[in-house]
Amino acid sequence: MLSKKYRAMLGKGSVIMELSAFANARAREIGAENVFDFSLGNPSVPAPGAYDERIASLLKSEPGKAVHGYSQGLGNREAREKIAASLNRRFGMNYDPDDLFMTCGAAGALAHAIRLVTEPGDSVLTFAPHFPEYAPYVTLADRRLDVVPAREEDFQIHFDALEEIMRPGVQAVLINTPNNPSGAVYSAETLKKLADFLLRKEREYGHELWLISDEPYREILFDGIRQAYPARFYPRTLSCYSFSKSLSVPGDRIGYLAVNPACGESRAAARMAAQISRGLGHDSAAALMQRAAADCCDLTADFSVYERNMNLLYDELTALGFSIVRPGGTFYMFPRSLEPDAGEFCRKAMKYDLVLVPSDSFGVPGHFRIAYCTETAKVERSLDAWRRFVKTEY
Amino acid sequence: MLSKKYRAMLGKGSVIMELSAFANARAREIGAENVFDFSLGNPSVPAPGAYDERIASLLKSEPGKAVHGYSQGLGNREAREKIAASLNRRFGMNYDPDDLFMTCGAAGALAHAIRLVTEPGDSVLTFAPHFPEYAPYVTLADRRLDVVPAREEDFQIHFDALEEIMRPGVQAVLINTPNNPSGAVYSAETLKKLADFLLRKEREYGHELWLISDEPYREILFDGIRQAYPARFYPRTLSCYSFSKSLSVPGDRIGYLAVNPACGESRAAARMAAQISRGLGHDSAAALMQRAAADCCDLTADFSVYERNMNLLYDELTALGFSIVRPGGTFYMFPRSLEPDAGEFCRKAMKYDLVLVPSDSFGVPGHFRIAYCTETAKVERSLDAWRRFVKTEY
Repeated sequence: MLSKKYRAMLGKGSVIMELSAFANARAREIGAENVFDFSLGNPSVPAPGAYDERIASLLKSEPGKAVHGYSQGLGNREAREKIAASLNRRFGMNYDPDDLFMTCGAAGALAHAIRLVTEPGDSVLTFAPHFPEYAPYVTLADRRLDVVPAREEDFQIHFDALEEIMRPGVQAVLINTPNNPSGAVYSAETLKKLADFLLRKEREYGHELWLISDEPYREILFDGIRQAYPARFYPRTLSCYSFSKSLSVPGDRIGYLAVNPACGESRAAARMAAQISRGLGHDSAAALMQRAAADCCDLTADFSVYERNMNLLYDELTALGFSIVRPGGTFYMFPRSLEPDAGEFCRKAMKYDLVLVPSDSFGVPGHFRIAYCTETAKVERSLDAWRRFVKTEY
Repeated sequence: MLSKKYRAMLGKGSVIMELSAFANARAREIGAENVFDFSLGNPSVPAPGAYDERIASLLKSEPGKAVHGYSQGLGNREAREKIAASLNRRFGMNYDPDDLFMTCGAAGALAHAIRLVTEPGDSVLTFAPHFPEYAPYVTLADRRLDVVPAREEDFQIHFDALEEIMRPGVQAVLINTPNNPSGAVYSAETLKKLADFLLRKEREYGHELWLISDEPYREILFDGIRQAYPARFYPRTLSCYSFSKSLSVPGDRIGYLAVNPACGESRAAARMAAQISRGLGHDSAAALMQRAAADCCDLTADFSVYERNMNLLYDELTALGFSIVRPGGTFYMFPRSLEPDAGEFCRKAMKYDLVLVPSDSFGVPGHFRIAYCTETAKVERSLDAWRRFVKTEY
């Protein structure tokens, strides 16, 4: 019989997908250029030219079996060597290539990380606002997702709320910095304080706690802000990465899980991830893409358009009276909505062809997400719609 | 804490990987050309030139977002249209593109299929000899794998044994034709008889039964044999496919799950597969590869080398006294070993630098698998080793 559990999920659909469907329907009526679709976090800038060139040159220069053959269990060895070397150089880490497991994007890395350090019934704790997909990632693995309320003044960690919610059933803590949807960048101080908290709770509970760090926006940073590397602060860290945003290749599904060698059993953990893969049917990412991405792992797409868009929107919206935590990175911002019901606010915005995502699925009421990974010209054209929207409705 | 379940799997390792490690070590001693490694099912023929050309031309001619952007939830629409049209034309099916869900190879398709039609605790029934990975695929999803003993005279289905083992806890039946490891091709008669059996058991049990058909070797056929399309015989069929073997691109991880529209709810089932994906962290295959594979879905690599190798080995080994079911396809054969203990037999073969896989992990005693996806010259050079092996040891 078709599974009841997954059938029940069909009715629901994601709010983001619904909004996107509205935006597409409206685009057919008035032209896509007139719909200000800020709903989807789909990178808009081109991949670095070197990435496409590398794929083309691998196809040309290598025998088919080398290019199209199976990867090793942990993923292509050469790719893991290059990525480990880059992480070691950039973040002062000490990864061995065998501490890395190549995955289909960050989603793949998280699926493995969750199963690696928690058992069914355990809790994974995360912080609002959070990527809505964390809920299915965790609950479909038969774990429970606990959410710590947001610290709304800066979207760093609300440590008092964390202290209150933390309990022995929590086995892993999931962070995402730079953060989707807020654009907040956790400071070194936040990461240090979190590490101290986890070490203290490990002693108190008498069991290990693991930090799962979801880092697909690691390189998209504004205003010269730097992102401290979470694993530097805590030994039992699983860093989950995707090249989807850094190289602007989300369809290529390339990422990795990197186990901090300071945990003392990183190689076993990486090999366990490969075992987990047998059950998930995941079995590594496309070998050709692994190699091309690794060869470009010190490059990024040109993110200046995201920063330009952020500045345009931040300046206009604050002038219109919005309260916004200024993003330190990503291509999102998360202003407070102008009425408490974020859904109602976003519905009204649609009348002005502004497609925004209400905050509820991010675990915070009364906010909305703007994904400004779009051309700057469109952001500029949207400013008039923002002004009309706010002046007419509020 | 690192998962006990997956840590326990580390000790075991697969027999095939162990053998492969032996072969690699021996290759360093005496040269790879002198080690007759028949252990790994890693396609050796080149991909069709059109496949590489298509990747290169997509990279050149399309805007980055079209090539490297996210796929739709079910996978790239254009790819699904082309594949559905090909299946409809070749096998008289009636697939809608929305009956298909693109996956990372057949492993990905099976992971979704299992979760789509069974619940934790249910049984999936398969037939010996079977691909050893079926055991982790099923048991890591918290399902149970029941195995019907082999019909050793031709490796078709042993229906008396099936009747005996079948029970109401079975919710899905998993077949693999052409078969790894035997090379057997299920006849139309076998498939018809299986369908009748399933329909009868559905009435008897009062619940649906699903057929999961694993078909990565679908196009590798010898002696002009044709493979009947399993879904033609049974409405509730999930066809799991991979381009790994047909296009000789196993590292590219492209496959699909096709739900037979005759089941009456194929579109819902495909959409449920996309929901399952959220929990598995699978999230579709590389978009570029989906498109290139779909554009080449009526092509195959040149399989004549596999047929040539099969004939060489079949003739020599039968002359040496081996009892072998002549393969109808794949790049495997599965002779009876010359002593009852297949492990001991394969250990002795190693002395002659013949690397073979004992049959126990395939669910059958007293046989061994030869994977002859290698150059014909090497197969020819191996014949002397076979002769020395048999004459000295038996």
